[in-house]
Amino acid sequence: MRWSLLEIERQTEIVIWQGEEAFLLRDLGAEYGARDVLEASPALRDRLSTPTWHQGLRAVDLKTARYLPPLLGQKILCAGLNYRDHILETHSETPTYPNFFIRFPDSFVGHEEALEIPPVSSAFDYEVELAAVLGRPLFGSISRDAALAAVGGYTLCNDGSFRDLQFRASQWTLGKNVPRSGALGPWVLSAHELPLGARGLQLQTWVGTECLQNGNSADLLFDVADLLIALAAVLPLGPGDVLATGTPAGVGFTRQPPRFLQDGEVCELRIEGIGSLRNPVRKVAHSK
Amino acid sequence: MRWSLLEIERQTEIVIWQGEEAFLLRDLGAEYGARDVLEASPALRDRLSTPTWHQGLRAVDLKTARYLPPLLGQKILCAGLNYRDHILETHSETPTYPNFFIRFPDSFVGHEEALEIPPVSSAFDYEVELAAVLGRPLFGSISRDAALAAVGGYTLCNDGSFRDLQFRASQWTLGKNVPRSGALGPWVLSAHELPLGARGLQLQTWVGTECLQNGNSADLLFDVADLLIALAAVLPLGPGDVLATGTPAGVGFTRQPPRFLQDGEVCELRIEGIGSLRNPVRKVAHSK
Repeated sequence: MRWSLLEIERQTEIVIWQGEEAFLLRDLGAEYGARDVLEASPALRDRLSTPTWHQGLRAVDLKTARYLPPLLGQKILCAGLNYRDHILETHSETPTYPNFFIRFPDSFVGHEEALEIPPVSSAFDYEVELAAVLGRPLFGSISRDAALAAVGGYTLCNDGSFRDLQFRASQWTLGKNVPRSGALGPWVLSAHELPLGARGLQLQTWVGTECLQNGNSADLLFDVADLLIALAAVLPLGPGDVLATGTPAGVGFTRQPPRFLQDGEVCELRIEGIGSLRNPVRKVAHSK
Repeated sequence: MRWSLLEIERQTEIVIWQGEEAFLLRDLGAEYGARDVLEASPALRDRLSTPTWHQGLRAVDLKTARYLPPLLGQKILCAGLNYRDHILETHSETPTYPNFFIRFPDSFVGHEEALEIPPVSSAFDYEVELAAVLGRPLFGSISRDAALAAVGGYTLCNDGSFRDLQFRASQWTLGKNVPRSGALGPWVLSAHELPLGARGLQLQTWVGTECLQNGNSADLLFDVADLLIALAAVLPLGPGDVLATGTPAGVGFTRQPPRFLQDGEVCELRIEGIGSLRNPVRKVAHSK
């Protein structure tokens, strides 16, 4: 199952995809809600199990819709320095424990929406990341199996970062929380349709014909289960919470010369088996 | 004006204090809402300007009420390493730019509620902090006057921290986000009733008869206006958002031997002119 959040006529709608067509969750009946898509609940999977599940339903007119980031939870946690090649390129020490930071929801846009470069910085860097979306709550001392069983699905994350702001102080908060500097989506693909822990998926960043990042989730220093175990030992995660797992090598600020995203470029992330997250980049006088 | 959030019969209520008595905001009339207390709006201040404003209103039965943290916004940002004596005691370099981290709302409890020590750590440290509560939105390049004009009021913050978790990685996120490890309250005192920028206020932490921290907000490295200018240059703040400004010297982990909060102790913070925030400390098998 693939689901998205779309804005349609100023309403936020959960939609379910069938190929290139999207159908409103609420058209499937009042018994299905956000929890069903987050968990990929047996009831909803059963409802979608026949090839004709969407018969009689009207597909969304995608020309009138905008993608929103698929955020239905409270918390967005991101792992930093979590691929060995990225640790090397940043001349960082290899962490012995995962490094987490927090992004606010308003730091993200959806698929096809513009990523914004505000006047305060121009050192705008891309970061392709695999992101897990929780289906069920997770808290306390848990096993690897329990951690992965709580993941409802996976999506793409562009953990877009303003490097000068990020490194002005020891804590990365400001550089990671510029409004509309990151992207999530276009959809969440249910975990059961991917390898366990979304392991072994190729991740890439493209700008035009340039492939700037090309890694594989098999090379995560701390994998999805490790990260969730470390988080849940300390704080409660709930359905819809998002964990971005870190970026592989190839980011712009470590290149000689540095290669930052520019006004007018289009940044496209691809993760094998999940999809592609495309965002134009736009210089703005002031963020919206 | 002093306002609090209380839980009364499972409802969240905004109350306004008159001495030791609290009155429901909604009893003042449907025209007053959260924005009025956050901004200390002229309309509400006018309504409260006579000594008999509460005549005919029924005071809240405080025995049936619980204090909630006064959180009516979306974002909680905290400054770290922002008093010179605290920077010295932690052997840190003096920042040339403010250091911000984020706490989730569920990491806070209200006045008189128990702070919790979960099984995952026992290195639980107090941090008394002056916290500004935004009354109006703030974003972009702003003056000191505009920054301070957007502050609706001030409250006390115990930025309770689990030190082993905080320093396991470069980012402090986990040690600052244990559920029910921090406290906010008991009320928000309107900015106009304090010196400009809440400057020159004595801050203390007490456990029993021991005074563990004793600083003054005049010694902030980056003051309230500096911090808001740095934040608003990067990200939008809204009404109800909270800025904790950092803690002075005397924290437990830098003492010889370290002095952490223990099950059964009561941690009391005092800020001159604002009030006192008291919380018992309780060891729990698992956070609620």
